[in-house]
Amino acid sequence: MEKKFGQPKKINRLTIHNLLKKAFKHHWHPCSSAKTLEETPPVCVKRALGSYIEDMEGHLVIDGISSWWCKSLGHNHPRLKEALLQQANKFEHVIGTSTTHEAIIELSELLVTLNPGMGKVFYAGDGSSAVEIALKMSLYSRFNQGNTKKKGFLSLVNGYHGETCGALSVTQIDTFKRGYASLLFNGLPIENIPYVNTPQDPLWQDCQEHWDTIQDFLEKHHHKITALILEPIVQGAGNMRIYSQDFLRRLRIWTKEQDIHLIADEIMTGIGRTGKMFACEYAGITPDFMCLSKGLTSGWIPFSAVLTTNEIYNCISNKIGEDKVFCHSHTYSGNPLGAALALETLKIMKDDFAWDDFKEKTAYLLKSLQEVADETKTLSNVRGIGMIAAADIRLNLFSSDKMKSMIRLAYQNGALLRPLGKTLYWLPPLNIEKHTIEELKEITKRALLYAFK
Amino acid sequence: MEKKFGQPKKINRLTIHNLLKKAFKHHWHPCSSAKTLEETPPVCVKRALGSYIEDMEGHLVIDGISSWWCKSLGHNHPRLKEALLQQANKFEHVIGTSTTHEAIIELSELLVTLNPGMGKVFYAGDGSSAVEIALKMSLYSRFNQGNTKKKGFLSLVNGYHGETCGALSVTQIDTFKRGYASLLFNGLPIENIPYVNTPQDPLWQDCQEHWDTIQDFLEKHHHKITALILEPIVQGAGNMRIYSQDFLRRLRIWTKEQDIHLIADEIMTGIGRTGKMFACEYAGITPDFMCLSKGLTSGWIPFSAVLTTNEIYNCISNKIGEDKVFCHSHTYSGNPLGAALALETLKIMKDDFAWDDFKEKTAYLLKSLQEVADETKTLSNVRGIGMIAAADIRLNLFSSDKMKSMIRLAYQNGALLRPLGKTLYWLPPLNIEKHTIEELKEITKRALLYAFK
Repeated sequence: MEKKFGQPKKINRLTIHNLLKKAFKHHWHPCSSAKTLEETPPVCVKRALGSYIEDMEGHLVIDGISSWWCKSLGHNHPRLKEALLQQANKFEHVIGTSTTHEAIIELSELLVTLNPGMGKVFYAGDGSSAVEIALKMSLYSRFNQGNTKKKGFLSLVNGYHGETCGALSVTQIDTFKRGYASLLFNGLPIENIPYVNTPQDPLWQDCQEHWDTIQDFLEKHHHKITALILEPIVQGAGNMRIYSQDFLRRLRIWTKEQDIHLIADEIMTGIGRTGKMFACEYAGITPDFMCLSKGLTSGWIPFSAVLTTNEIYNCISNKIGEDKVFCHSHTYSGNPLGAALALETLKIMKDDFAWDDFKEKTAYLLKSLQEVADETKTLSNVRGIGMIAAADIRLNLFSSDKMKSMIRLAYQNGALLRPLGKTLYWLPPLNIEKHTIEELKEITKRALLYAFK
Repeated sequence: MEKKFGQPKKINRLTIHNLLKKAFKHHWHPCSSAKTLEETPPVCVKRALGSYIEDMEGHLVIDGISSWWCKSLGHNHPRLKEALLQQANKFEHVIGTSTTHEAIIELSELLVTLNPGMGKVFYAGDGSSAVEIALKMSLYSRFNQGNTKKKGFLSLVNGYHGETCGALSVTQIDTFKRGYASLLFNGLPIENIPYVNTPQDPLWQDCQEHWDTIQDFLEKHHHKITALILEPIVQGAGNMRIYSQDFLRRLRIWTKEQDIHLIADEIMTGIGRTGKMFACEYAGITPDFMCLSKGLTSGWIPFSAVLTTNEIYNCISNKIGEDKVFCHSHTYSGNPLGAALALETLKIMKDDFAWDDFKEKTAYLLKSLQEVADETKTLSNVRGIGMIAAADIRLNLFSSDKMKSMIRLAYQNGALLRPLGKTLYWLPPLNIEKHTIEELKEITKRALLYAFK
C-alpha cells in the first residue's frame, strides 16, 4: 500500500471548524462523552487508504486499531472495491429467505470448506446478532428435543460478546452491563483463566494447574448448561488477554463429554487476526457454532455469519416429517453486497495472502512494543499474538487523564489509538507495511514519554 | 423504471440445478424449513431492477414485499448506486467513535430537521440493534438519574420489534418467542387495540370506547415503566394490522403525563411507507425515541438510526462536570457507505419524490386488492394505508398447504409474495408503476383462485 494519496487539496480551516460544530450538534458518537469529544475532537475523515486515514487538512493518521478491529485488509482495498461494484451492478439486496444467489452459495461453500466439521451457514448483519443467533439456536435445539433442563449459558470472565441484551448477558465485563441488570439473563462466568503473554509461556502448552479448580466449578453446573461461549485464544474488549491453547482444547473435550455446545466467537479473532485463519486452529478444535463478522468483509459493511454443524441444523430445521423452522427474520440475512465482499476477502486470505511475510511482521509488531516498553519504562505485561500487541500502563504512572492526553498526542503525531482502560494496544490491518509499524512505534513512544513523563 | 433488462443470457438448466443443490447444501435460509425449500426452491437471482427481480432463466418476478419491506425505492436505483460509488471512492468505513465525516454530519442534520423535537442521532447496523439501543438508552437515563423504580417496558399486543433478546422481549407475538422464555425479560403487552381497516373507520379519529379499559390497565403499571415501545399506525409482522391515530395520540399524551418514554419503532413504517414520511405524523406526535432502518437506505445494506431528544442525551452523556458515556460499541456505528445511501434516500424522498402521484397509486393498490377480494371471494378484512394492502384468507378456505401452493403459483406466474399466517399482503416498492400493480393483481387473483378453488 502506498502511503501517499497525492497532493491534498487545501481546505479552509473555518470549513472544518463548521463541520465539527455540526458533528457535535446532532451525531451521538458511540462510547464518547460530550466532554471527551470537546477535549479531543473526532478526526474529520476525507479519505482512507491501506493503513492510513487522511483528515480534511491532509494529515495522514495510522489506523492503529483497524477501526475497531475490523479493517483487516486495510482501507479501500482495490479488489474489495471491485467486488462491491461488480455485485452492485447485478443487484444489491434481495430477501434472503425466498431467494438465493451466486455470491452467497459460493461463500457458504468456502466457509464450510475452511472449517471442516461445519455444515451450514446462517447470515446476519453484525457480530452481536451472530452471537444472539448462536445462543438461540443452541437453546432451540434443546427445545426441539424436549430437553427442558439445559437452558443456561457459560462464558469466560473478561469475555465480551456484544451489547444487545442476549450478547450482553454472556459478556463478563461489568462496565458494559452497568445499569442493565433488569434486561439480562444470568450468564455464568468461568474464572481462573490460564492467561499467557505469548505462546512461549509453558501454560500455553499445559494448563493442568488451573484446570482442576475450573473443572470443579464446571461439574457443579454442567447439567443445566446448553452452551459455553468464548472468544478463542484472545479476549478483545477484556483488555486483549491471551490464554492457553491447552485450556481451549480441554474445554472442547469437556463440553463434548457433557453434551454442551461450544460457541466460538471469532468475531475479532477470525480471518487471520491471531496468526491463523481461525483462532480455534491453535487448539485443533471444531466448535459447534462459530460466529464471524468484522474481518469477514474486511470491515466494509455490517455482515456476519454463524457456522454450525449439520447435526444442529437437522435438529432444528429438518426433523423428518416435520415442518420445523428456525425463526430469526433478519432483514439483511445473506445481503449480496456483504456476501460479495466476504467472498473476496476470504479468497484473498486463502489464495493471495503472504502468510510467511505476515508471520515475520507479527513478530516485528510484538518486538516493537517490547522496545517501546523498554525505552519508555511506562509499560508492563507486554503481550501479543498474530497482529495484536498489547501492554498495560504501569500502575504507579496511570491516570485516566494522562491516558487521554497520550491518545491526543498520538493522534496529533499521526496515529489513531484507543485504549482499553489501562491497556494500550496495537491492532493494525494485517497487511500493514513494516515501515508503518516502525512509524507507529515512534509515535507511541513519543506520546507515552510526553504523557507519562 | 423499465421492466425490460435487455435480452437475458441463455443459461443451462443443469447449471441452475447445480447451483440450487449447492444452495441447499450449506446456506441456512432464515425462516424456511428444509421441507418448504424443497417444495418451493428459492429464486436464484441474476439481476434486479425497480420492482422486478430476474432469475437465472430470465424470468421477471415482481418483488411484491420489497424484499422484507426494505427496498422502498426499488432495486438498483441509479442515484443510490451513484451515492455508494462516490462514497466508496473516498472511503468505505472508519471507526465511528473517534472520527466523523461529511455524510454522517449531513445525514444527522437532515434526520433532525425532518423530525422537529429530536436533537441527536445514534447509528447502528440493523433494526433489532436500533431497538435494543433505544431500550438501553431509556433505562440508562433512569439509572443516571438514580431512578431505580422505572425499569419495565410496555408494548402492544401483536407488536414486533426484532428477534435479538431485548427486542424479542418487547415483541408480543408468540411464534417468535417460543422456546426462548429463559432468555427474555417480561415486556408487558397492552391489549384491546382499536384496529381499523382504513383511516375511513370512525375509530381512526376517536377511540374513546377502547381507551377507558386501556387506561385502567396502564394506570396499574405506570409507576414501574420506563418506556412504551410501539410500531406507529401499522403493526407489520403482527399481520399488517392498522390502528387508530387517535390511540397513538392518546398514548403520547398519557406517556408524557406519566414520565414514560415513547419509543416509535418506525423500522417498517418510516420513510414514506404508510403515506407520510413518518407514521407518527398521522397523530401529530413526537416520540422520545425513533428507530429507523429498512427503508432508511432503501434496503441496500444494514444501517439503522436511533433518534432521540437533547434532553435524553444530556441525561446520559452530558452531565455537567461528569464524564458520562453511553456504552454501546457497535463496530459499524455511522458506517459511511450506509450513511451515504441513507442521505441520498432521504434527499430523494424529501425533494424528488412524486408524493401526489404516490397517493394516487396507494389508493389504486388498495382498490386492486379489494377487487381481488370481490372477484375471488377468498379474502376478508381488506385493509390498507400508504403502500401497504393486506387481507386475510377466509377462515373456511384456509389451510397452510393451500397457502404454500398459492405462493408457489404466484411465483411461477411472476410475483414474489410471502404470507404472514393467514394474511396475504402487498408491500411493493413505493415507486412501483401502476401497470406493475395491475400485473400483481392479476397474478394474485389467478393464484388465489387456483389454490383456494
